[in-house]
Amino acid sequence: MVTKASIKKVKKSVQPLLVVGTVAVDSVETPFGKRDECFGGSASYFSYSASFFTPVRLVAVVGKDFPSQYRKVLEEKNINLEGLQIHPTGKTFRWKGKYDFDLNNAQTLETHLNVLLQFDPVVKGGNQVDYLFLANFDPTLQMKVLKQVERPRVKLVALDTMNFWIQNKRKDLKTVIEHVDLIVLNDGETRQLTGENNLIKAARKIRDMGPDIIVVKKGEHGVLLFYRDQFFALPAFPLDSVFDPTGAGDTFAGGMMGYIAKQNSVTFDTLKRAVAYGSVMASFTVEKFSLDRLRELGGSDIDERLSEFRALTKF
Amino acid sequence: MVTKASIKKVKKSVQPLLVVGTVAVDSVETPFGKRDECFGGSASYFSYSASFFTPVRLVAVVGKDFPSQYRKVLEEKNINLEGLQIHPTGKTFRWKGKYDFDLNNAQTLETHLNVLLQFDPVVKGGNQVDYLFLANFDPTLQMKVLKQVERPRVKLVALDTMNFWIQNKRKDLKTVIEHVDLIVLNDGETRQLTGENNLIKAARKIRDMGPDIIVVKKGEHGVLLFYRDQFFALPAFPLDSVFDPTGAGDTFAGGMMGYIAKQNSVTFDTLKRAVAYGSVMASFTVEKFSLDRLRELGGSDIDERLSEFRALTKF
Repeated sequence: MVTKASIKKVKKSVQPLLVVGTVAVDSVETPFGKRDECFGGSASYFSYSASFFTPVRLVAVVGKDFPSQYRKVLEEKNINLEGLQIHPTGKTFRWKGKYDFDLNNAQTLETHLNVLLQFDPVVKGGNQVDYLFLANFDPTLQMKVLKQVERPRVKLVALDTMNFWIQNKRKDLKTVIEHVDLIVLNDGETRQLTGENNLIKAARKIRDMGPDIIVVKKGEHGVLLFYRDQFFALPAFPLDSVFDPTGAGDTFAGGMMGYIAKQNSVTFDTLKRAVAYGSVMASFTVEKFSLDRLRELGGSDIDERLSEFRALTKF
Repeated sequence: MVTKASIKKVKKSVQPLLVVGTVAVDSVETPFGKRDECFGGSASYFSYSASFFTPVRLVAVVGKDFPSQYRKVLEEKNINLEGLQIHPTGKTFRWKGKYDFDLNNAQTLETHLNVLLQFDPVVKGGNQVDYLFLANFDPTLQMKVLKQVERPRVKLVALDTMNFWIQNKRKDLKTVIEHVDLIVLNDGETRQLTGENNLIKAARKIRDMGPDIIVVKKGEHGVLLFYRDQFFALPAFPLDSVFDPTGAGDTFAGGMMGYIAKQNSVTFDTLKRAVAYGSVMASFTVEKFSLDRLRELGGSDIDERLSEFRALTKF
């Protein structure tokens, strides 16, 4: 007999938003402090941020040394970790970076890919994914993930990348870009990918490569959203104390995709609010090291900051 | 007998907005074209832009060589030119500049101050000025102007400056800043003046120097407005074809001050709309050389673009 309770259970086990990315151990130095061996990684920031809006499933790899308390951080937000592979011998991916007083640019001091070198992402239940986020990663692996989800069932595929792949794996990257609906880049990457200085012209060029939706992050200068022929511009939420920018971009993407998945709609209006929510989530992350600030967030904090944000952009 | 007509005439002769700045002959080269000996100068752009909102009075100096057709450009907008001194022998101030593909920074090729070297700004009827704009200029001359207007009668004094004065006449500049209500700077100047990288902290430092209102122009990234403890952020109006950025800042200031003077009010709401109008005016200026685009503007063009602007920033 199908009871209400069993229907509810079935619904709950569906995880409409999937992220494939990295789970890492970071060491970070900013002008305001230093933190060794803290919790990081694109999929960690993304999924924690998105989980405020919708259930999230994570696909990533860690080593045997991955601290159990970091796993618990993701579990406290009910993030589905069935896709988190644990390598039997390797070590977890480690990143060490430093920010100078101009907090816009991270200086990478050390990168130890470790288990990432053998990462073979496996998406179980690829026919159950509604929304997919391909975090910054080798484009050949991103393509491998994409092949495991069922098109056209999946409603929106979003992609992040970085200067390294644009420069060194341009051809593979372009193949992935052809197959996604949304791409999120910072302004430098947008210019690098297109060779076009004007961001509006650059966005048009990217649209011609495939995606309908282009999100250009400009750090302290806000976000531009291009959706087909429509355009939306949002300044950044003003912060007088950016403490640590690590994870801001992934937190932004998590808030954005989480909101889209929650609304289960890809209209221009939803997208506009989604980038606003993404900005709000990122504005929290940068106030403390690692996921510390996100972990403190209470029920109304997010919506309160969104209201504040709306007020200071309205004229 | 005081008739309606005579009252109207008296009212019309009052020019509530005064600008003191430069009237120049520019030669400009951009990646898209070249124009020699075209009409320029901070007071020209400012007053033409402001004249769409309110009557404007201009104080500046030119040489005997100043082309009569440029004077006619200002006259076509009924700009009061009684304060435009004509030097009997000297030549008009000339600026020659070039922009590379990154249109954010002008490269000055030649500056011939000419008549500016002996400029002694005279404000007649200093007791009739409601709104005053001190365009970018030697701060000692700006102070000289300020002493000719009646405080507290004047309702708002606004100031523009540039990196040269911040570096070379910091003490004199700080004296002027102490005496003004509004200062308009670009982001680089804001950081240079305060030694503070974070613009919110920088604005607080400037507020401590005197002005209640700080407007930070960020070019393609929009504008920040600080009014006492309140904050407003506006992205730039999106342009895919910036043709010539010369005069954008002065046109912005003209639209902003023109709107404030028209509303005859200095509330936070007025200021927010004023920077939006300023941005709209600047977005026109950069579409063509010199004042060419402003001169084409018809009745509803400005409000139409403002509506468009509002739509693409609302979420």
